[in-house]
Amino acid sequence: MNYRIDNLQYCKWSREIFEINNKAGLNAVHVTLVYHEDYDELQQRIKEWNKHFEENKDLIFLGNNYNDITKAKEENKTAIFFGFQNCSPIEDDISLIEKVHSQGCRFMQLTYNNQSLLATGCYEKNDSGVTNFGKEAIKEMNRVGIVVDMSHSAEKSTLDAIEISQKPIAITHANPTFWFEAKRNKSTELLKVLSDSGGMLGLSLYAHHLKDGTNCKIESFCEMVARTVEIMGINNVGIGSDLCLNQPDSVVEWMRNGTWSKSKNFGEGSKDKPGFPKQPDWFLDARGFNNINSELKNKGFNEEEINKILGNNWFNFYKGIN
Amino acid sequence: MNYRIDNLQYCKWSREIFEINNKAGLNAVHVTLVYHEDYDELQQRIKEWNKHFEENKDLIFLGNNYNDITKAKEENKTAIFFGFQNCSPIEDDISLIEKVHSQGCRFMQLTYNNQSLLATGCYEKNDSGVTNFGKEAIKEMNRVGIVVDMSHSAEKSTLDAIEISQKPIAITHANPTFWFEAKRNKSTELLKVLSDSGGMLGLSLYAHHLKDGTNCKIESFCEMVARTVEIMGINNVGIGSDLCLNQPDSVVEWMRNGTWSKSKNFGEGSKDKPGFPKQPDWFLDARGFNNINSELKNKGFNEEEINKILGNNWFNFYKGIN
Repeated sequence: MNYRIDNLQYCKWSREIFEINNKAGLNAVHVTLVYHEDYDELQQRIKEWNKHFEENKDLIFLGNNYNDITKAKEENKTAIFFGFQNCSPIEDDISLIEKVHSQGCRFMQLTYNNQSLLATGCYEKNDSGVTNFGKEAIKEMNRVGIVVDMSHSAEKSTLDAIEISQKPIAITHANPTFWFEAKRNKSTELLKVLSDSGGMLGLSLYAHHLKDGTNCKIESFCEMVARTVEIMGINNVGIGSDLCLNQPDSVVEWMRNGTWSKSKNFGEGSKDKPGFPKQPDWFLDARGFNNINSELKNKGFNEEEINKILGNNWFNFYKGIN
Repeated sequence: MNYRIDNLQYCKWSREIFEINNKAGLNAVHVTLVYHEDYDELQQRIKEWNKHFEENKDLIFLGNNYNDITKAKEENKTAIFFGFQNCSPIEDDISLIEKVHSQGCRFMQLTYNNQSLLATGCYEKNDSGVTNFGKEAIKEMNRVGIVVDMSHSAEKSTLDAIEISQKPIAITHANPTFWFEAKRNKSTELLKVLSDSGGMLGLSLYAHHLKDGTNCKIESFCEMVARTVEIMGINNVGIGSDLCLNQPDSVVEWMRNGTWSKSKNFGEGSKDKPGFPKQPDWFLDARGFNNINSELKNKGFNEEEINKILGNNWFNFYKGIN
């Protein structure tokens, strides 16, 4: 059986988007619940999701493990897997890791751009690696079954996490720096260590991670895929689109600034371009998976390889989470 | 006018202790309110203090600035200044800095042993210095009048804080490593930079910071004072005893472990000696200030110098907080 999985979306969720994901044939989506929210605020996000599940039960349900991806495929639905782009919901309390797992969390970034209690983010000047609390947290995440996600982390912290974690980790949404140099993208050396350890890279379709941004050509993207597969092998590359459909610009401002600064930070944007960037025209939403499918064929990938990249690799990775 | 100030105590507060501090002639004490508490938990600690103030108004009152130290001296009371040994009460929210200042906070450590959102603690393997949020927080602490306290921080973080802060910082309770090598003690180089920037060192009487621990001799302590004054000058050295009178051992266990670990950490102690260490017999409580007074005289310090070390330096430092 073949699967299509988008392993990162943070849309302004609505029936319209669940329908698009369904039309795109997505059997599973890893969705972001929090960027800066603490444990209590997480409970609000979960309530909102429970409402989505209630109102859209013909399209989506909460996924617990890889079997739910198969179930979703059979029922023509999309399994939703919860994830956090920050460790803020566990606050300073290791016992909350088991608690958020029981509430559905399956992926947690150790950092979101800035330093966290667990590790260093990619926007800090210096990277001290995984902290004392971070080591304990990774052990606990391994135990309960939450994937360590280092998409927004700095390099030494990511290498530390790979070494410390007893289970493969993921970079759910980022691209390689050999293609486009961005703070959020990852070095070839790191990608090699990641794939050698069984970890996954989810390639991003967010314009700030793409060569030529919104004007990125699908040919260029798929050449990058081919090169990344050469580096990481065919089994460790997937898609984590980072789609933020219908989100107002106030959301990206909040993502970047949270409540930690009195001055305004523009992150991957700039003063002139502070908002969400436009998607490239070949990936306006998840239906762009079809365009990538076609172009990967043009690049010489066979069907099995394409299916791996567009979902089966993530499916296999999910098998190892619990 | 001469003052006696102990710029760090975390006792199990009771009338008995306020009486001891009064008998010791302390005009001001900087007391620790939190180690790991968040903003809501801080509110509990403040309520407890309000009860102490209510029940012991003949002995103590909440100090706001240096004038309250003079007032305390005139009224034969002790002004209590609130401080935090961790930045946990401001959580990830810069606006809480002004809020905790309005509630009485005058000192805040950027870290307590481990990595925080602001800087690196002295028990971490690597020290990445003051973080993005840390830079913003120091600016805000300078603005509202909260002293940056780096007693439990790592060295690069401390040097960063000195450089970033527009106002002098403090190490409220620690000793020099030239006298006793401990993770919590401070290098000669750091102490020079601290005093050059107008910062204060509060010398600690906590056995784990003392040469020969509980068996430390007062002669040795006062020799260290003399040597520290040679390094830092006579105006930048005071006392921050770190007295933890009447605290049960469960408290030091909690200080060290908070809620960040499932395995037990012994911090400055060890598996064999997990509890609070005994005080040296010449500093069982704040009345030991008198013993230090006498021994400093024996070491050749004159009265003015002794008064500076035992309180006037801290008094002058308090003048610059707001």
